[in-house]
Formats: sequence, structure tokens, C-alpha cells
Amino acid sequence: MDDNAVEAALARQADVVKAFKARKATKTEVQPEIDALLALKAEAAKRLKTAASRSDHFDRAALESLLAKRFFIAPSFQIYGGIAGLFDYGPPGSALQNNILSLWRQHFVLEEDMLELECTNLTPESVLKTSGHVDRFSDAMVKDTKTGDIFRADHLVKQVLTRRLDDDRQLRMGGALSDAKKAKSKAVVLERTVRDHYELVLETLDNFQGDDLTKLIRDLDIRAPETDNPVTDPVLFNLMFDTQIGPTGQFKGFMRPETAQGHFLNFKKLLEFNNDQMPFASASIGKSFRNEISPRQGLLRVREFTMAEIEHFVHPDQKDHPRFDEVRDVEMMMYSSKAQLAASGASKMKIGTAVDQGIVNNQTLGYFVARIYLFLVRIGIDPARIRFRQHLANEMAHYACDCWDAEIKSSYGWIESVGCADRSAFDLTAHSKKTGEKLVARDTLPEPIIRDALILEINKSKFGPAFKKDAKAVQGYFDALVVGSSSEWDQVKLAEIDAQLKANSFVQVTGTDGKQYKVTADMISVVQKTIKISVREYTPNVIEPSFGIGRILYALLEHSYYVRESDEQRAVFKFPASVAPIKALVAPISNNAEFSPFIKEIVASLRRSGVANKVDDSTSSIGRRYARNDELGTPFAITIDFQTVQDKTVTLRERDTIKQIRSTIPIIVEIVHNLVEGRITWEDVMAKHPAFVAQELSA
Amino acid sequence: MDDNAVEAALARQADVVKAFKARKATKTEVQPEIDALLALKAEAAKRLKTAASRSDHFDRAALESLLAKRFFIAPSFQIYGGIAGLFDYGPPGSALQNNILSLWRQHFVLEEDMLELECTNLTPESVLKTSGHVDRFSDAMVKDTKTGDIFRADHLVKQVLTRRLDDDRQLRMGGALSDAKKAKSKAVVLERTVRDHYELVLETLDNFQGDDLTKLIRDLDIRAPETDNPVTDPVLFNLMFDTQIGPTGQFKGFMRPETAQGHFLNFKKLLEFNNDQMPFASASIGKSFRNEISPRQGLLRVREFTMAEIEHFVHPDQKDHPRFDEVRDVEMMMYSSKAQLAASGASKMKIGTAVDQGIVNNQTLGYFVARIYLFLVRIGIDPARIRFRQHLANEMAHYACDCWDAEIKSSYGWIESVGCADRSAFDLTAHSKKTGEKLVARDTLPEPIIRDALILEINKSKFGPAFKKDAKAVQGYFDALVVGSSSEWDQVKLAEIDAQLKANSFVQVTGTDGKQYKVTADMISVVQKTIKISVREYTPNVIEPSFGIGRILYALLEHSYYVRESDEQRAVFKFPASVAPIKALVAPISNNAEFSPFIKEIVASLRRSGVANKVDDSTSSIGRRYARNDELGTPFAITIDFQTVQDKTVTLRERDTIKQIRSTIPIIVEIVHNLVEGRITWEDVMAKHPAFVAQELSA
Repeated sequence: MDDNAVEAALARQADVVKAFKARKATKTEVQPEIDALLALKAEAAKRLKTAASRSDHFDRAALESLLAKRFFIAPSFQIYGGIAGLFDYGPPGSALQNNILSLWRQHFVLEEDMLELECTNLTPESVLKTSGHVDRFSDAMVKDTKTGDIFRADHLVKQVLTRRLDDDRQLRMGGALSDAKKAKSKAVVLERTVRDHYELVLETLDNFQGDDLTKLIRDLDIRAPETDNPVTDPVLFNLMFDTQIGPTGQFKGFMRPETAQGHFLNFKKLLEFNNDQMPFASASIGKSFRNEISPRQGLLRVREFTMAEIEHFVHPDQKDHPRFDEVRDVEMMMYSSKAQLAASGASKMKIGTAVDQGIVNNQTLGYFVARIYLFLVRIGIDPARIRFRQHLANEMAHYACDCWDAEIKSSYGWIESVGCADRSAFDLTAHSKKTGEKLVARDTLPEPIIRDALILEINKSKFGPAFKKDAKAVQGYFDALVVGSSSEWDQVKLAEIDAQLKANSFVQVTGTDGKQYKVTADMISVVQKTIKISVREYTPNVIEPSFGIGRILYALLEHSYYVRESDEQRAVFKFPASVAPIKALVAPISNNAEFSPFIKEIVASLRRSGVANKVDDSTSSIGRRYARNDELGTPFAITIDFQTVQDKTVTLRERDTIKQIRSTIPIIVEIVHNLVEGRITWEDVMAKHPAFVAQELSA
Repeated sequence: MDDNAVEAALARQADVVKAFKARKATKTEVQPEIDALLALKAEAAKRLKTAASRSDHFDRAALESLLAKRFFIAPSFQIYGGIAGLFDYGPPGSALQNNILSLWRQHFVLEEDMLELECTNLTPESVLKTSGHVDRFSDAMVKDTKTGDIFRADHLVKQVLTRRLDDDRQLRMGGALSDAKKAKSKAVVLERTVRDHYELVLETLDNFQGDDLTKLIRDLDIRAPETDNPVTDPVLFNLMFDTQIGPTGQFKGFMRPETAQGHFLNFKKLLEFNNDQMPFASASIGKSFRNEISPRQGLLRVREFTMAEIEHFVHPDQKDHPRFDEVRDVEMMMYSSKAQLAASGASKMKIGTAVDQGIVNNQTLGYFVARIYLFLVRIGIDPARIRFRQHLANEMAHYACDCWDAEIKSSYGWIESVGCADRSAFDLTAHSKKTGEKLVARDTLPEPIIRDALILEINKSKFGPAFKKDAKAVQGYFDALVVGSSSEWDQVKLAEIDAQLKANSFVQVTGTDGKQYKVTADMISVVQKTIKISVREYTPNVIEPSFGIGRILYALLEHSYYVRESDEQRAVFKFPASVAPIKALVAPISNNAEFSPFIKEIVASLRRSGVANKVDDSTSSIGRRYARNDELGTPFAITIDFQTVQDKTVTLRERDTIKQIRSTIPIIVEIVHNLVEGRITWEDVMAKHPAFVAQELSA
């Protein structure tokens, strides 16, 4: 087996063990699988050690140092010591993100006529209470009992057990522990059963919550790694940043943890804007905020990040998509929950097949999965490192009923970068119930239905004066008894109310404000009428593709980074021209004054075509300047030399082939424009124009 | 005099009074001017009453209802009752804002090779303490002593005095008070001296702060308007939203009140990215947050808003601008502080003249003033309603040394929409002093200077061990004694230190951490050396154009809104095509199936050209659909009718002339594309193509 095969076998075996656990298999059943997993892990570790000394593994440290050097990103407030989990984007990082977002708008919003929205970051508590975030959007944390240092509980367990297993392995292999480890470590050789138990816990860590997690931390004597002090029992920490809105302190608010709620709250206005036509999608690009307990992994787990979210509102029973045929043949790695449980690994599949076979629940979900895949590939993510993984039932968010994550592989492993969830009617229903505002769409029936039914009539002249300012809250209770459409009432409930009115001359109801009200028989009555139903109301379902732009951007950086083996090792980002921060370098071969008018002409001409460019007329050698721009991922360089002064031609260099052609300024500018717009490829250009071999020209 | 002349005279006279106050003129001097002002006010009020019944005054209520109806904007969280000062942008509002921002990027960032940045909203307290915002970014507020209702103090004084004056005027004119006013009002006729005093206070309200404001509120018996209860003494309320970063509560943070600080903190990285070349500018678009005490005036005073800020870093003595000649002849209304004090009114002036005459301090500031003007006009702001007003010395922000505001006139009056401030070296100096990090640029001298000078030498082998982790803080003290460049020390200070070392064998210094340290003679020494200075360090000055995008967008909405007098009054937004949310409506004359392929062809073709379009194939009449798109400000409509099926021609309608032409689909699409890109005008199109008179075609 080569290294990849070992890794694949290991991943498969981990899945097998996971699947056994998920099925609550007995220990005897699962033991042989764990043994196999351990053997593979040992083999993989050995190979990794060898690989580390080879040059072809991913050198993350080199990438990170380049990102800092060229100011793609930097820790925020660095001169003040920085704050974990907050990053600034410098000029190339910021341009890269803008270009990704601009392609996102083209690919989704414009292409699909989505309704773009911009909602506020500040969000009052009441909204996030309804959405479930106030109660459920939290992680468990523990404290070092002496220093007060704080850890995210699951990360700590993972860290401690992983180290115990590592120490054990090294001791058993007779290896010496590193100095750093010796310092505080109480490294011991573990019993086989203990080892197995640790492996089991690590594989199923996501399942430990609440009391289970508390017990786990106590039983395994999990301690703070640096101090070896005991830790407290885990407590839940809500991940939202809170604040007060207004000077009185009466409005508690949060910075939103997702952009989605703004779409739901505006549903009625959006539907109206769309001329009451369903289905439709809203889209929003903006910041979200999560107060991570211990941010790590650079851009992958941060406290403030850009999201791009789509909420596609659709009839619950009509999830076919009119444009599905356009994507039917798009093929990608799919990793269904069934495949995960059967531990059969991800497999290449056409989205058409996946939907036909019911692996993906419906065409709309499938359509978005395919469109997400096409988007990621379009901006430069390596297609071989994209897979769509379906959530297992127990990992689904509180609002979701089906979910496929686009995971992108980087040196951190497979990272969830786009979620594509069917949130069903969860949010619209919850907000509607809380506010008494109907959040529904209407469907005209092919044939009107005529039938007898109970309806409730309110005697406004009694009802209003009786409840005054509470009238809306009381009426809300009755409004909620309307099902389907405005003339259809919950027949069972109305019969109950009718019976109570007849028996007691009143009913006791709970208003939408949570208070109890007594409604008397002179205010309401239940009557039998013949009704005609031609329109039916329904609460739309929501299919939500949600993009973590920072994670996608980071993956793009890793996938685009390579080192060119030449006289010196030079780093290059092979961004597609459409996302590259700068499209063209304009460089005179030296800072001779004769070149200035040509620089001006080229820059003006590129600007007219909307091609972002950068003049570098510094005194560095032209090779040095090319290298600097390779590090920024600039795909094209236009160079002015002494021949330009004679015949007005310039050279055009392409970043990855480092081949050049030569032609007049207007032709070169047009070629660059067409390359950036994706109308032609560099191969097309090379086929038409002879390669130019740069001559050394004296300055 | 016509109405405009009265208004102009009134504005001039208000300025005269303001100027007298600013000069601290005596009461006798100022009285005749106040009398004149009152007379003009009375006249203006009378005319306003007449004007209100005419149709040509600005109907803000109609605009607001259209903005809600077409979902340009909406109060956030409306179904939860809303939160004052927070607004969501619906599809047309969001597209309008995106288009404004995209033109902003073109006009400033791309055109000037600015370095775009994206920094976090979350900001730690330490940063905003240094910048002065923690201590000084606040407004005075008072509370109703019984209900606890909160008012911004200056707004309350203005409201109460204005009402007393109004009541007085009505009573003196023998008019009846409105019912609403009668309810709680204690309307009385005022003594002439009281009236004058109130007028004086209103004119100079900005000058009342701290104890003066407290005294004013007590002396004038300012009370809560609804309840007539007394109010508390004013207290300062900081306008920043605070939160905790991380789970331990040790990092107090704020949502940033401006984007500028992120630029300053990254100055060193930006300069390095720019190959150490000065001057340069950074630019950033993002949200800022201000917890207004009582938000009002719609989009003009909100709690969360989009800013676009530029920080142009420049040598303090080299503020000429290489591209100034390009804007020298740009002419606009300028209202200098001198003109304000002399009460001579704003006047039309070329920016070249303004700089030449020293009215605008330097070319760089002047260049940006002109560029801001050109930007505002480009996006559709009425040039006649733009003026640049220089801040008076007493209204400058704590960091600014000169400031010109672009004010735009709307129905709310002249509103500051872009600030263009010279922040001098305030921020870089403050952050550098606080963190010990040098935030300087370097300038090569034409001739090196060679001279004898005192320098300080640190004996590292003693110094480091003596202070251990505090060494950096102590060294910071000495680093701050370096002036100009790395080899130039503050000679006076060094002489002092030398004297103390010789006298006591130690000096007492304050480290950058604020603590006191004793530095002994074995750790440092002051020596005389011959130094060669070829490079000089300096702290750059910062010129900051800062755009309130929401305010500009609101002004654009008002300036673009008009009502077309036709069979029915129809509202239109005459946005320039470049900022219009949707560029082209695509509408079949009826929903006949034969039209579908043409719709598809046109849409695909527009999309390829990047022209945002919208199909409206609803069953509404074509006139109704045109009207709907006039309300969205869509400049062009392409209509498919039965003739299209025969000869593949379509009509093109322009929004403001409501003229149409007819041609083939490719030609029409190309015309629209060229119109949107600004390459041709509708007049050009009309000159070339005969006007098409729509025929009534049966469906």
C-alpha cells in the first residue's frame, strides 16, 4: 500500500468503528474493528514520520509566513497583543474575498434572480430566544480549578486523551519523550483495555453532552494540560456576544450568530416583493459573530466571520426544481449517512442519480448541492478535495431536517465549509407563533372545495372594549386556530370551544403574550357555515445553503499554493484570474523616464476594461518583481522595455507557465481582458502568438 | 422676494447671528441681528404654510411609504415591534447600496491604487481607550424623574424651547393651539427678553456642555414634554456598544464606532506592503455602530450603518498632490469657516482657487474634496444640493486639525454626509506611545547631515536581566526619546539623564506600562558621538475622507424621487443607470407561451453582459408593470409583443422620457449594455433610432 492507500484504509476503518458505535454495537462486536483501527493508525503514524522529512507534504508554516509577509491576513490588534480568533484582511486578502463574493453574487443571486437583503448585525434577545439560539447555541467549557484558565470541554478531552495515547505509544516503542512533554507529563504505559476505551471515547466524543460529559471528565481524570490541575465540571457557555441596545438597558441584544434570521423575519415583505410568487430565494452576505471559547486553526475557527447565506422558500410538497436538468450530470464525491453507517466510504455520483435514488431528498436540495460544487470549482477549489457529507441524525442542528455539508480537505483535514440544510418550516413557524404574525404563502387550488364547517365569529363591539390593549394578544390565540387558509378552522378545537361556551358561557384561553384571558359567550360564537376554499395557506419550507467565506478562502489559499523549483524556491498562488486579487502587473524593465507614458497608457486602458492592475516601477530586478507578484497570485505581467520605445510592443507573461508573448499594447490589453473574463485561455493565446524569449536589455 | 430668496436670507441671517455668538459679541451688538432673524423667521413660517398647500414641496411621507411598499428599506425586527435606529435593506435598497459601493471602489480604490483592508467590528477596549473613544465618544442624556424616560439632552432643550416659541407665536397671533398641544401644554406668551434668550440658546446649543448644559436645563426649567415632569441633571452616555470577548470576561470589547482604527493599527504592514513608499491611502468599507440615545430621522441617525473610509497617509510637510491639476477646475459650493464667521454665505468656487487662496489648507485635502464632489454627482446626487462646509475650530472632533464636510440638502436640511478631515498625526502618535510600536515612515535626506550629538547606549547584559519581562516597557521609555530617525535623540532629555546619572547613579523613569522603574548607571550611559543622519523618521499625517453610505443613499432617494403627472400620479426614481438596482425590465406584453423563448434569449444575453435585469411576466397590464418598475427606478424596459414573434424585434422604453424605440434583440441588448456602462446616452439612442409608438396589440 502507498501512503494514500493507508490513509484511505484508516479513514474507512474509522468510519467502520463510528458506524458500530452509532448502532450501539456491543463491546465484543466492536473490539476487532478497534484493533484493526489501532494497527492502521500505528502504520499511518510511522509513514507520516517518514513523510514529514520529504518535501512533498503540505508546508503549512511556509504558507502562513507568506500570508503574513504579503499581508493577506494578519491577527487583528497585533500591536496591542492581538485577540484570539480575530483577523484582519490586508489588501490581497481583502481583494480575494471581494472577488469570491462578487462571483458568488453572479453565480447565485444574479443567475437565479434571488432577492438580496441586508439585515442588521445587532439583534434583540426576543428574536434569538424564538430561534432557539439563546437556549441552545452553546458549548461546554471547564476551568482549571487553580489558575482559572478556560478550555472548551470536548477539545480538552481530545487533547488529553490523544497525548496519553501518544505517550503510551512512544514509551512502548522505547522512544524518548520530547523535553516539552517530559516537563509536566506523567506519561505512563496504558493497559490495553484503557487504550481501547480512550480510542472509543475519541471516536464518539460528539455524543458526550450534559451529564455524560461531566461523568467522562471525572472518570478519566481529565486535567489542565499545562498545570496538571483538576478542572471544574463543564458548564454551558452561550456563544453569542451580548450587548445592550439603547441607553436604558431594557433591550438586551446580541450580535447575530447567523444571517438567516433576518430573512425569516422579512419573509412577508419578500414574498410581497416577489409578487406573491413561490418559490423564491433570498440571499445575504454579512458578518456573523460567535464567541468561541478557544479559537484555533487560523481562519477556520474565528469569532467574527463573513457568511453568505441563501434561504430558498418552497412549498413543502413541491420540491422539484425547474432547472434541475441543467445540473443532473454534475458528478461529485457524495458521502451519504447510509454510506457513513455502512462504512463504505464516499463515492463519486451524479447528482441526478443521487436524487433519483432518494439519497438526496429532493431536487431543490440536489440542485443547490450541485450549484455549490460548481461554485467551489469555479473559484479554484481543487475538485478532488471536495466532498458532500450528509449529516447523521444525531448531529443535525436543532432546526434542520436534512443537511449536506460541502467539506473541503486542507492540511487540517476535511472541513465543513458550506452547509446545505433543509430547515423545513422550523423558523417561520416559531416566529409566527411567537409574534402572532402570519408567515405563510398561498396556493390556489385547481378546484375550489365547497363544504360545511365550523367557523368562529368574533363580536368586535364586545371583544375590543373588553380586552382593550390586550385584544391583539387574545385574538392571536384564535387566529392560531385557522389552519390551511383564512376560512378553514381547526374543527376539533372549535367543537371544544363551542361545548365550553354552551356549558360555562366562557372559555379560558392563553394569549400570545402568555397571559390567561376569560372570553365570554357574548364576544365569540362558533357557527356552522358552508365555506368555499379556493386558496390554501401553507408555511413554506426553507432550504438553506450557508457559506463560511473565510473557510472557503483559506482552503483556496492552500489549494492554490505551490513552490516553484527554480534557482531559488519561490512560492506561487495559482488563483484563477477571476478571483486573483490583482489581475495584471505593469512593470517597466527599469525606471527609465522614457517608459512613463507607456505605463500610463497601459494602466488607463486596463482600468477602462475594469482589470485590476498594479504598477511596480521599483528598482528591484524584473525577476524579483515577477516573484513578488507570483506570491500575490497575479496571473499576468505586462513588461515595458526598450523595444517598447521603438515599436510600442510589450511582453505578456503568464504566472504558471512563465511563458511570454509579445505584441502591441492594445492587443495585449485586450488579451488580458479576455483572459480575466474567461473568454479565452492561456493555451489559446499561446497557440496564436509565438512564445517570446526575453532578451537581456541594457538600461 | 420669492420663497427661495427668503429662505436664503434666513440662512444668511442665522449665520450672521451664529458668527456674532462665535465671536462672543456683546448683547447690544447681537440684538439687532436677532431681531432681523426673527422677522425673517416669521416671514418664512408664513410662506411655508402657504407652500404646504401647493404640490411642489417635498412630500416625505409619500417617499417613505413608497420605500416601505417597494421594500427599499424597512425597520428591522418589525414583526417583533422593531428597534429604533435599526433598518434592513430589501432587494432594491440592498442593490442600490451595492451599486453605490461598487462605484465607490472604482472611483477611489481602483482609480487611486488604494490599499483596501477589512478589519474586525469587535474591538478591544484598550484600542478605543487610546483613540479617545472610551473617554470622549458620548452624548449627554437626561431622564424623566418619574417615568424614567430618556432624552438626549440637547435634543430635549431644542424641542422644549422650539415649542415654547411656537406656542408664544401662535398665542400672540391670536391663533388657537392644536388639540394635541393643548393637552399638556402650559402655553404662555413670552416676554420679549425671554424670547430673545431662547433664540440665542437655540443658535448656540452646540456650545453648551458639561456644567453649562446642567445649568441651562435647570435655569430654563426644561421638562419632559409628554409628562411635564422635571428631568435629571444630564449625564454622559458613551455611544459604543460594549460586549465581552471570550468566556472569561477579561477582555472588554466594543463594536467599533468607525472603521479608521483598523487602518492605523495596520499602518506598519500597509507601508511595508506598499514597498515603503509614501504617500499612500488605505480604504475600507464596513459597518460601524453607535448606540444613539434616541434615534430619529430614518436613515440619517441610526445605530448600525455602513461606512466607507479612506486614510491617506502623507508627509506632514509634503501635502501637494500629484494629480491635483486634474481636479483644479472642479467648481462647487464652498462654505469656509471664515465665510461662516463673516456670515457671507457659501459661494461657488473652483477647488484650485480655494487651495491657492489658502481657504483649503493643502492640495491633498483639496484633491479629496473635489473627488468627493465628483463621486456624489456621479451617483446621482443633485449638484445644486451639495456644499462643503468647513468646521469651525470649536466643533472639530478631538482628533482633527482641519475638516470639510460634504453636506447634502434633503427635506431634513443640510446633512453632513461625508467628512473630510485632516486628523494630523493624532492617532498614529497615540497608538505608538501606548504600545511602544514605532508607527513611522522614513524619508531619505537629499544630503546626509553629519554632526556631534548625545546618544544613549544600553548595556544589554545588565539591562535585560535587571528588568526581565518588564524590559520592553522600560526600553519603551528610552525609545520614545528618539526623534526624527534612529540615531537622533532628544538632546535636552539626554543631557538631563546624563546629569542625574552622574549625580545619583540612577534615573527614575515611567515605563510604557505606566509603572515606575529605577534604571542604574551600569545599565545605560549617555555618550557624545559623531552621527551621520541620512534618513529621517516621521509620523505621517492622515487625511480622512469618511463616507456615511446610509445618509448618501437616503439623499439619493430624495433627489431621485419625482411624481409623473399623468392620468394618475405615479412615482418615479430617476437613478442613473449605473446605480439603479435593476437596469432592465424584461416584459412580455401578455403571458402567451410563444413569448417564452424570447424572454429566455434576452435574459441570457443581458446576463452575459452583466446587466442586472428582472422578468415581469405577471398578468398585470403592461402599463401597470412599467409603473411598478418606475417605482424601483429601473431605467429601461424591453418589451416582447406579437410583432416579436413575427420579426424578432422588441421595444426599448426609457424611464424618464417614456419614449420607446424598436429594434432586433441583439441590437437592443447592446444598446442597453452601452447605456448602463455610460458609453452612450439616451439622447444618442433617440437620435439614431426613430421613436416607436406602441400599438395596442390584441393578446
